[in-house]
Amino acid sequence: MQKLLQAVTGLFLSCIALAASAGTDRYVLTSVSENRHVDAWSMNGRSGPGSTSWSIRKRTLHGGKQEGVDLIEVTSGALKFSVIPTRGMSIGQASLNDVVLGWKSPVLESVNPAYINLETRGGLGWLDGFNEWMVRAGIEWAGHPGMDKGRMLTLHGRIGNIPASEVQVVIEREKAITTLRVRGRVDERSMFGASLELWTEISTVVGSNIFTITDEIRNAGSLPQEFQIIYHGNYGAPLLEEGAQFVAPVREVRPIDAVAAKGIDEYQVYRGPVAGFGEQVYGVRLWADNAQRTTAMLRNRAGNKAVAMSYSVDELPYLNLWKNTGASEDAYVTGLEPATGYPANRSVERAAGRVPTLQPGERRKFSLDFAILRTAAEVSRHTEAIEKIRAGREVSVNLETIKPAN
Amino acid sequence: MQKLLQAVTGLFLSCIALAASAGTDRYVLTSVSENRHVDAWSMNGRSGPGSTSWSIRKRTLHGGKQEGVDLIEVTSGALKFSVIPTRGMSIGQASLNDVVLGWKSPVLESVNPAYINLETRGGLGWLDGFNEWMVRAGIEWAGHPGMDKGRMLTLHGRIGNIPASEVQVVIEREKAITTLRVRGRVDERSMFGASLELWTEISTVVGSNIFTITDEIRNAGSLPQEFQIIYHGNYGAPLLEEGAQFVAPVREVRPIDAVAAKGIDEYQVYRGPVAGFGEQVYGVRLWADNAQRTTAMLRNRAGNKAVAMSYSVDELPYLNLWKNTGASEDAYVTGLEPATGYPANRSVERAAGRVPTLQPGERRKFSLDFAILRTAAEVSRHTEAIEKIRAGREVSVNLETIKPAN
Amino acid sequence: MQKLLQAVTGLFLSCIALAASAGTDRYVLTSVSENRHVDAWSMNGRSGPGSTSWSIRKRTLHGGKQEGVDLIEVTSGALKFSVIPTRGMSIGQASLNDVVLGWKSPVLESVNPAYINLETRGGLGWLDGFNEWMVRAGIEWAGHPGMDKGRMLTLHGRIGNIPASEVQVVIEREKAITTLRVRGRVDERSMFGASLELWTEISTVVGSNIFTITDEIRNAGSLPQEFQIIYHGNYGAPLLEEGAQFVAPVREVRPIDAVAAKGIDEYQVYRGPVAGFGEQVYGVRLWADNAQRTTAMLRNRAGNKAVAMSYSVDELPYLNLWKNTGASEDAYVTGLEPATGYPANRSVERAAGRVPTLQPGERRKFSLDFAILRTAAEVSRHTEAIEKIRAGREVSVNLETIKPAN
Repeated sequence: MQKLLQAVTGLFLSCIALAASAGTDRYVLTSVSENRHVDAWSMNGRSGPGSTSWSIRKRTLHGGKQEGVDLIEVTSGALKFSVIPTRGMSIGQASLNDVVLGWKSPVLESVNPAYINLETRGGLGWLDGFNEWMVRAGIEWAGHPGMDKGRMLTLHGRIGNIPASEVQVVIEREKAITTLRVRGRVDERSMFGASLELWTEISTVVGSNIFTITDEIRNAGSLPQEFQIIYHGNYGAPLLEEGAQFVAPVREVRPIDAVAAKGIDEYQVYRGPVAGFGEQVYGVRLWADNAQRTTAMLRNRAGNKAVAMSYSVDELPYLNLWKNTGASEDAYVTGLEPATGYPANRSVERAAGRVPTLQPGERRKFSLDFAILRTAAEVSRHTEAIEKIRAGREVSVNLETIKPAN
Repeated sequence: MQKLLQAVTGLFLSCIALAASAGTDRYVLTSVSENRHVDAWSMNGRSGPGSTSWSIRKRTLHGGKQEGVDLIEVTSGALKFSVIPTRGMSIGQASLNDVVLGWKSPVLESVNPAYINLETRGGLGWLDGFNEWMVRAGIEWAGHPGMDKGRMLTLHGRIGNIPASEVQVVIEREKAITTLRVRGRVDERSMFGASLELWTEISTVVGSNIFTITDEIRNAGSLPQEFQIIYHGNYGAPLLEEGAQFVAPVREVRPIDAVAAKGIDEYQVYRGPVAGFGEQVYGVRLWADNAQRTTAMLRNRAGNKAVAMSYSVDELPYLNLWKNTGASEDAYVTGLEPATGYPANRSVERAAGRVPTLQPGERRKFSLDFAILRTAAEVSRHTEAIEKIRAGREVSVNLETIKPAN
Repeated sequence: MQKLLQAVTGLFLSCIALAASAGTDRYVLTSVSENRHVDAWSMNGRSGPGSTSWSIRKRTLHGGKQEGVDLIEVTSGALKFSVIPTRGMSIGQASLNDVVLGWKSPVLESVNPAYINLETRGGLGWLDGFNEWMVRAGIEWAGHPGMDKGRMLTLHGRIGNIPASEVQVVIEREKAITTLRVRGRVDERSMFGASLELWTEISTVVGSNIFTITDEIRNAGSLPQEFQIIYHGNYGAPLLEEGAQFVAPVREVRPIDAVAAKGIDEYQVYRGPVAGFGEQVYGVRLWADNAQRTTAMLRNRAGNKAVAMSYSVDELPYLNLWKNTGASEDAYVTGLEPATGYPANRSVERAAGRVPTLQPGERRKFSLDFAILRTAAEVSRHTEAIEKIRAGREVSVNLETIKPAN
């Protein structure tokens, strides 16, 4: 097996393959336990019947607030995605040719958490770095800022602004199938505080239009601990446009507040960009199949481009639908966000029974498949699959706002 | 044209001249868009009739809280100035031989913003890094900390603690004239927040005792945005001393509070260092010539050393005069600060009509010339020019404090 | 004399011996004034009758939140200790063979202060990086968070999260005696704020089981300044275990609050780990000998392993005893913390007369010897020395809580 180590910055860097058994190679790019941080690295190959080329490239970002931020770019045929270890293993962008999962944020750089103050703006500092396609909100807490149990919780927690402690690339080869995995461990730990560990993995089979996020959260402490996670996936053009639709087997939809309540009749369709548009947030529960799997989709107006995500409602019983169709300079974006709860402050979520607890040593797994669709036929097939999950069951429109009215 | 690329840290670094048309070379030292950050770089040459030597040197600071901070040092004959891209393109110091523009702060290092928490000390965290000759206060807000529209504003805003996203050195040669320019873009942008962009330039013609700050602020959002800017230029020895004077065509002077009101009769003259001296701040408006240009000067007691700054009162209608003649261990310093308003909290400034607004896409330019004067003759000539601007017009002493009395 | 300069990252780094007079070599590893930061460095030698080998190694930590943190590891025969310049010259761990001074914190990394926000969690952000054997609390303030004189004081002050501005290794050779010193200066300075400078030194004579911390705090301002320092030394296994004892010539013991008051009868003995154990804190004053020296010891149950620390009660009149015998996953740890006061908020400490003041330019020295004991005989000898200091004098149990009951 050939290991190509490229010299990118003029320094030759070495990287160790930990295990080469059964066609599996593991490359450690960052490791606290081995005191390792690889500034630049890359690898590539070809796989499968069509001899699809793939590559994985690690580099370090420079300039402004992105100075020192790690970026891992995976290319697998026409599928691409980028992982940002320094920002809690968030996924910067994913794409399949011209279908891009991501959005245009006013925040232009991938901000090093060293420059982020989560406490600023009354707990809204998270917004100063918010521009990824997929950022996890969590994991000690997620949701809106505010006091809970005597502590100020900042927007969407800390996990998206914690640099990963371990980062690995795993290449698995089994006959004609090559699987690429980017794995990382992010620690959310403090003295007299959270003792939570997140192992995350983004993987794809070379040649596929699907990639998978597989996460595991572990309670590393000696006492039960609450946790929350929201898979805050965000979409702008080309999927989001006037007439784009949220397609899902909705079981219940509920507005977060009075503003969202006003728009609830058209929660599934999108308008074009409007300067000063105030955000609308809906709490959604989905019907699932017998295996508790469900699928939700965002499709463009023409119905020939879409993203479809499939996951278990046992793992992620709620989906937050964030509609923020402001002007494109400010942010024309929607979030389709499978979650353990709604995005109200944890105090509200706990009262509603939407904050899970992990026992000491307990682990909880989350797995989401994302398929990027580029033809009307593919979109139709997924629409049918969604209808099959729905199986004619009704949607319940619950007008009680998630946040208590004051 | 010869481009000298020095290897400073043992690594050979390359730097690209973007445009070489008409004798203009542009060197990109930092660029988010090109993912570039040059650790060390230098260039030099000779220009003009006296064959004046000049050099520009980029290096990276190390140790303590200055670890990783970029510094660009420009030498143009006897004129020197240093730009700190990592600290919002602030100017560390400027000098012409023994006349230094700058001061001795208790803060000894050029602090990396990664170590600054603007929220600390009830919003006074800006003071933990404050030691430059010229730091911009702004640009979403400037002035004193406090609540405004439900948000805690920290002292003097964020722009001085944001690393520049683009940094360029431009060398222009036209016949015998060589102009040196250090340019940078600093982004003050957030989701659901400011969407402001600052392009700043510090330039000088080789052989001159004058350098110029030329800034442009742009509203990159889709809605009107307020902004504020204070050019917080600060002076200690040798210009500041007992008997030093603030010389300017003052149209109105006004104390910020009761403490300043007590000293208003001698607002134009300085005392020697006194341990425990409480600061005095005056809001000043200046008379201008027909082109709306004005000049203000700080001169030493003997009247043979001074700095004179010239700018447009259309661009910067206010000047904040900060007298802080404490013990030299603490800070013996005065600020002469052209601005869009006074340094009270933005809520006070807005109520007084001193907070300008930019329309979507609108740009606003600011330009200030600084002349460093080293002879009694030069100081006299500038004093006469100031008198000519004044043209015998009166000063109005307005005893109403800028901050409302409680 | 041979100076071994190792190339660790592929770059050859040079390090200058400043003074070689009288067998003293000084190596500057970090220096703001010289703009120096050495990424990796090492030195070693042999000394004394037994030709004991010693080494000093500087490296940089990588990965997660420890990215860029400096670490200096000293090995002197069987004695080892590590200094963390980036974290205020804290001492990560010390050991003599199997007797380790240190503990297992939920915080797994040596956190770069760039990732710490002291203000978070209502001023408990210090806990997000707390895992060293010895961290200084201070020096503008120490102790519990809360308002004092209109300012929010965060837990245990800032000094433990300020990168050292000057770091030196000093090797002194005098006949058969070689002394190793790691020195650093940490500045706690701000405009309109603290103007305090800490020079710290950790030293040992090669072949000894003793090492010494020698600190000096200087008031660099023009006005009197308060300061506080707590030598927050923390111990887990193997010294801490069920039946371990705090052995000291106690003059007075006092609970910080009602919780501690309940356990005061057994304040000198330790229980095994209990999940959810709430911390107990005692304020202790010790008897001293005629030279004002005292000794306190933490010994294991069997009495054959211990740490003994000796210092002057003139310098450090108080000792904080922190008992936190929670589950080992959370933190099974005790602190024996000589200090200028108790760990209540500075407002409480000032009212009780336990906050010292430095006059302008004044310096205050602190010196603590730590002996690591590995045999029953050594432990007995130190127990006898403690009894000799006690000289039969009584302990006073003061049930008035240090923190006023609400």
